[in-house]
Amino acid sequence: MIKTADHLYLQVADKIEQMIEKDVMKMGEKLPSVRMLSKQQGISLTTAFQAYYHLEGKGLIESRPKSGYYICRNTRRMAAMPGTCAPVRKPAAEVSVSDMVMEVFNHMSNDNILKFSVATLPVSVLPSAKMAKAVVHTMRDLQAGGIGYEPLQGNELLRTQIARLSLGWGVHTADDVVTTHGCMDALTLCLTATTQPGDTIALESPAYYGALQLAEGLGLKVLEVPTNPITGVDLDYLDKAIPKHKIKACLFVTNFNNPLGCCIPDKNKQELVKIIEKYDIALIEDDIYGDLYFGKQRPANCKTFDTQGNVLLCNSLSKSVAPGYRVGWTMPGKYKDKVLRMKHHHAISCTSLTHAAAGHFLEIGRYEFHLRNLRKMLHTQSLRYAQALCEYFPESARVSRPQGGCVLWVELDEHINTFELFQQSLKHKISFCPGRIFSLQNRYNNCLRISYGNPWSKQVDEGLKTIGKLIRKMN
Amino acid sequence: MIKTADHLYLQVADKIEQMIEKDVMKMGEKLPSVRMLSKQQGISLTTAFQAYYHLEGKGLIESRPKSGYYICRNTRRMAAMPGTCAPVRKPAAEVSVSDMVMEVFNHMSNDNILKFSVATLPVSVLPSAKMAKAVVHTMRDLQAGGIGYEPLQGNELLRTQIARLSLGWGVHTADDVVTTHGCMDALTLCLTATTQPGDTIALESPAYYGALQLAEGLGLKVLEVPTNPITGVDLDYLDKAIPKHKIKACLFVTNFNNPLGCCIPDKNKQELVKIIEKYDIALIEDDIYGDLYFGKQRPANCKTFDTQGNVLLCNSLSKSVAPGYRVGWTMPGKYKDKVLRMKHHHAISCTSLTHAAAGHFLEIGRYEFHLRNLRKMLHTQSLRYAQALCEYFPESARVSRPQGGCVLWVELDEHINTFELFQQSLKHKISFCPGRIFSLQNRYNNCLRISYGNPWSKQVDEGLKTIGKLIRKMN
Repeated sequence: MIKTADHLYLQVADKIEQMIEKDVMKMGEKLPSVRMLSKQQGISLTTAFQAYYHLEGKGLIESRPKSGYYICRNTRRMAAMPGTCAPVRKPAAEVSVSDMVMEVFNHMSNDNILKFSVATLPVSVLPSAKMAKAVVHTMRDLQAGGIGYEPLQGNELLRTQIARLSLGWGVHTADDVVTTHGCMDALTLCLTATTQPGDTIALESPAYYGALQLAEGLGLKVLEVPTNPITGVDLDYLDKAIPKHKIKACLFVTNFNNPLGCCIPDKNKQELVKIIEKYDIALIEDDIYGDLYFGKQRPANCKTFDTQGNVLLCNSLSKSVAPGYRVGWTMPGKYKDKVLRMKHHHAISCTSLTHAAAGHFLEIGRYEFHLRNLRKMLHTQSLRYAQALCEYFPESARVSRPQGGCVLWVELDEHINTFELFQQSLKHKISFCPGRIFSLQNRYNNCLRISYGNPWSKQVDEGLKTIGKLIRKMN
Repeated sequence: MIKTADHLYLQVADKIEQMIEKDVMKMGEKLPSVRMLSKQQGISLTTAFQAYYHLEGKGLIESRPKSGYYICRNTRRMAAMPGTCAPVRKPAAEVSVSDMVMEVFNHMSNDNILKFSVATLPVSVLPSAKMAKAVVHTMRDLQAGGIGYEPLQGNELLRTQIARLSLGWGVHTADDVVTTHGCMDALTLCLTATTQPGDTIALESPAYYGALQLAEGLGLKVLEVPTNPITGVDLDYLDKAIPKHKIKACLFVTNFNNPLGCCIPDKNKQELVKIIEKYDIALIEDDIYGDLYFGKQRPANCKTFDTQGNVLLCNSLSKSVAPGYRVGWTMPGKYKDKVLRMKHHHAISCTSLTHAAAGHFLEIGRYEFHLRNLRKMLHTQSLRYAQALCEYFPESARVSRPQGGCVLWVELDEHINTFELFQQSLKHKISFCPGRIFSLQNRYNNCLRISYGNPWSKQVDEGLKTIGKLIRKMN
């Protein structure tokens, strides 16, 4: 039944709201254009605009630049957000979750498994033809087809293009950039440049398991900092923890954090940089998801607010262009010399050919255009996946609401062990990341990470339904 | 004047010996074929053979398979061999030679400098056209042109081809191989898989500076083991040192060691493996120069004699095919699971495209044919360079006689500081490696490493002459 409303635009908005509530119009779907709506409903363009504006204000729909309005929330049911973890008394002893990580990723190259575990996009949505063209061009262009080493700092064209990308959030030059063999390599170089084995570093909690494993392998102790799913790391806690635990470096995923999805607000980023500067320690900023934002514009980085050079920004093209090309980089601020030294000791050179090809692609390949499509796709997928989780998982499940990136974080009832759930899912040829691997403190046993990188399909739908059924059986 | 001799073949041999002595025929030069000699001298083929056989017995000439006889020694003057260093009392404290290394390699990509410092071959002698073809083929062949990740263990075609290469010294399968981002990456993974920060490892002395820097970066202590320029590491010393210093792993370049050039004889390799097995520790065997032998056949590896899986063999295509492709690997024996884990933590995937292309090249690219030419070239260059050092450096200089690889090790008078010599040479746009960077113990200050990777040229000749002059000025 349509509610009565004083204004015409409210009547139209109410109609749409009910369509959404009754699942006639589903999350992620595109609404008719304003012009179309005005025709359909026999209302003026202004009234049609007002109706959408009203729904947008209620958070039910959202406009995407140059694309139109989309349904982003179902009022009927929306999962609650996960909570912030409690702080821990002291840094973790070296408890290894390495076995668990290996078990989860053992099946990484098995194509018969539906992988919600991998936070990368399928190659089908990546610009493979354009990259192949860039490689062919590059082989003609480079001395001896690129079989030789590059300069230590990296391919100059690529560094110039990376500097240009920084225009969205700062001003940097090719000289500020050191290329690396993917983003993990950048994190490795930055950690070894700013710490010694035995030192303590701070990570978000939950933290990307790769960073935890890396820290463990380098003989570093890890302090897991309580992290809010909206605002990111708890800055008051951090401010006290740095002197108390003699923290030498922080490693944070500041935008669309993996796995929690939080994007630290600008104000907090500024404050974070101030704290880092106060103690003169390093902030290794992993910005690998920064370009995959769903909002109107790219979020800033901590690097944006860094005037002293304490921030080492790390990024790569592995999420958005070509994972297998191993193109990563860091802007290491005042630690540049040390990072170059570590690069010289570890690898000497990146892969000359693929790095030069990536530089060429960024120069001429309409990267921004490619990203625009990718973002729309991911945004829609994030909503479809979230809706499916609401539908198939128990009501008590809490689901994150990322505004970018490609993963959802789910909190189930306390008694559900998601590693057992993972093992059972694997029997159905479905994998995801159990929460336990995102901490060294025996935490998040009732959580899981679901990647929505795979385009929505019947198989994805069935896969999520199956996980839901398995959870209910464990209840 | 020709000496009298009973036999005709001795008369002919004497003539040739005098030509060599008087520098009419120079080191590295090819002798006439046996057939040609028999015609020239009016002697039978058998007598011509006997003459060469006699000269070969005296070590003046040598036969190279399918190529003929070459002059390999000048009786007139031959530099003495460098000595074996004295043992040290205890492992080095973390003395950093990192600054010095960076100064030496600061100019790595400056084409105006004549680089005797870099132990790689110029791209002009590497198969760039064939590699480009392999890349194009591979992009057509691989899913999405190779922009995706590979399986964790590495490209299967490449691993199969690497296993085939092992036929020369053992029998291995693709399953024994883990691919890496070049040989340094293989060493890194193997070290992190077999040690913890704070552990002690054994290296040869002098040791490859890259291994020293790597160990330092990983927080490892290094025991430098006395090493003979012919027979390699002192096994008696090692046998006692392992329990005494609680050595967790040895990292040795067993064939044509960098920088000393020694190739551990088979008997010693066998004994070395026995020692390693006795204490059940890891031997990381860097075999990066093994394929660049000058003799009749490829030397064996320690891996050849390894029955318990304690040897982790490391190698790459960076010396012989394509440095910039970053194709390395390890056969990690019983440490395979740990190495795979480290690979997962550090890099996830190698560069899919160049690794697949390397696999294709090994499959169809006549790699062995390419290597044969490379070996001949390097052998000749090693002799030309050694001869020039004899000529231009003071008589007291001692020069190594490598039977493979691409570097010469030179020992000068005690009072010559080769780091100062390096700095002076750099003013003349010439670089080499000062000996000091091959130890953490403040040693080898009077030594230097000269790479003979660059084909002989007037510029090379002048460069070595200039270094010689600078040394004489310091005398």
